[in-house]
Amino acid sequence: MAKGRAGGDAERYIVGVDLGGTNIVLGAMTVDGTQQFAMHAVPTHAELGADAVVGRIVEGVERVIAQTRAETGARRDQFLGVGIGSPGPLDRERGIVIVTPNLGWRDFPLRDRVQEGVKLRATLDNDANCATLGEWWIGAAKGARHVIGLTIGTGIGGGLILDGKLYHGASDVAGEPGHATIDSTGRRCKCGNYGCLEAYASGPAIAERAREALAGGEPSILPAMVGSDLSRITAATIYAAAQEGDALAVQVVRDTARFLGTGIANLLNIFNPEVVVLAGGVTQAGEALFEPLRAEVRRRAFKPAVDACRIVPGELEGNAGVVGAVATFIQWHDIT
Amino acid sequence: MAKGRAGGDAERYIVGVDLGGTNIVLGAMTVDGTQQFAMHAVPTHAELGADAVVGRIVEGVERVIAQTRAETGARRDQFLGVGIGSPGPLDRERGIVIVTPNLGWRDFPLRDRVQEGVKLRATLDNDANCATLGEWWIGAAKGARHVIGLTIGTGIGGGLILDGKLYHGASDVAGEPGHATIDSTGRRCKCGNYGCLEAYASGPAIAERAREALAGGEPSILPAMVGSDLSRITAATIYAAAQEGDALAVQVVRDTARFLGTGIANLLNIFNPEVVVLAGGVTQAGEALFEPLRAEVRRRAFKPAVDACRIVPGELEGNAGVVGAVATFIQWHDIT
Repeated sequence: MAKGRAGGDAERYIVGVDLGGTNIVLGAMTVDGTQQFAMHAVPTHAELGADAVVGRIVEGVERVIAQTRAETGARRDQFLGVGIGSPGPLDRERGIVIVTPNLGWRDFPLRDRVQEGVKLRATLDNDANCATLGEWWIGAAKGARHVIGLTIGTGIGGGLILDGKLYHGASDVAGEPGHATIDSTGRRCKCGNYGCLEAYASGPAIAERAREALAGGEPSILPAMVGSDLSRITAATIYAAAQEGDALAVQVVRDTARFLGTGIANLLNIFNPEVVVLAGGVTQAGEALFEPLRAEVRRRAFKPAVDACRIVPGELEGNAGVVGAVATFIQWHDIT
Repeated sequence: MAKGRAGGDAERYIVGVDLGGTNIVLGAMTVDGTQQFAMHAVPTHAELGADAVVGRIVEGVERVIAQTRAETGARRDQFLGVGIGSPGPLDRERGIVIVTPNLGWRDFPLRDRVQEGVKLRATLDNDANCATLGEWWIGAAKGARHVIGLTIGTGIGGGLILDGKLYHGASDVAGEPGHATIDSTGRRCKCGNYGCLEAYASGPAIAERAREALAGGEPSILPAMVGSDLSRITAATIYAAAQEGDALAVQVVRDTARFLGTGIANLLNIFNPEVVVLAGGVTQAGEALFEPLRAEVRRRAFKPAVDACRIVPGELEGNAGVVGAVATFIQWHDIT
């Protein structure tokens, strides 16, 4: 077979798996991060059960390997292993998913099950950690030493990269700035705490704040946009209304920027990072969100910390998690 | 001269300097951290000016060396250098104190001035970083991998130890959890931000909250304790009143525990540390403060993060800073 574009016989590949609540993203990359192969998503859902999900992952990994080999001419032994990103909390050392409300799993040995299925070494890390590491490896935070990543969607996930390495803390649960309180007597959060950033700035929280403003009688085009079914309002609906100049929606976006700016200013004063990368559906508002968000950070954080830090959107979109899953495998096994 | 108790000819010593707004603490230690010599404090004040302060430091270091040599029989060349802890922000690489409101300095090359004065290598680090590193080296957080230290007094200083090393961030200003917002629309802080932990739980903030409660007409023994001069109320007065069962003072202490618990719960969810060390005047209330503080943390933080973490008082009291200044010299020069 012809020598592939990725360097032929000497090239090494790693497969990445990003396990979500509604789909699994898979793909292969070269260990230097320069090339991607067979990136694709496979649907999943909680009702499938853990065994069936493992089945889809194993099937998907085999498909990625076959397709990458077809493209590059690589041998199977040029695939070093599989990096898996999963919702947490989890135990990296033992490769166990401790609990995932979205999938309904408890103490599930995901790493070893995948390892047995594909006969390749596997590693396991938190999905938001993976997304942050992906942006650090080849995306918006490339080359930075200290990075904070926030993935803002249904929830707010976080990842910390300190001195170029994912920071996991004492028991692998570090990196939850979405569950740091910005208002100690504020909104109840799903986690049980009060006033968490997530309770203000996640997608559902943004929609909830818009519904509250509507209930207060403020005029808006939002009800018309959702056929008067207010439960259908999402962050995306609100962003669309704000673009039309809807005053209520504009205010909701500004408040979102203010809440996120407060949480991020806290992280600047604590961590003094070089880059904060924001990704996920909620960041789709673009500069309409980023501009007032950065202004709020400037108002609140210490100037030397503000001066040292870029606050930027992620560049990898839906692939950050799978790219980062590959990178976690590389960091875990110290591959150079 | 007789062989000293610290190991004689082969022993190595480092001098530590902890520069504060009202005094300078100095002393020498062996590089293994097991022995301390000539620990003492020298008074200082802002009006002295930088040159006079440098003079007192140089004089103090010479006295420490002389006294240590007298005790141990060490030669002068057994003293490797001087670790200096100073209020910040500062530039460690260039050894410069960028600004210290308490001392009125700006861009002052403290490290080099001390170096020239004593003819020994010197290093410079933030005072709260030093205090945390001291507790990690030989105090309450000894042997832990991930540690957060808070020094709660006139302000709230912080230090982060991650993987056994002080974490400084992108531009040496990391570690200010006292200036993370716990109430986004809350009290104005001296730093310009709103709702900082320091604005609720520093010594002056605690006294201020007590004065506000008194202004509300609540009965209390506090006014009698300060001869009706409410400006003389301090955290210590309030702790004494709380011990007498004064309901207003008890509530102020409980609120303090609640505010600190909120800020510390945030740090647990973000960092997942093994130990949080609390030191400084405000922690003198002991278990009356720590017990409700830990309860608040349990209420707010994720269980795996709570389970992984001890929240303890510092053990080194006024010497944490000088001990840690010695330890920063050791980490900076990688002395083993």
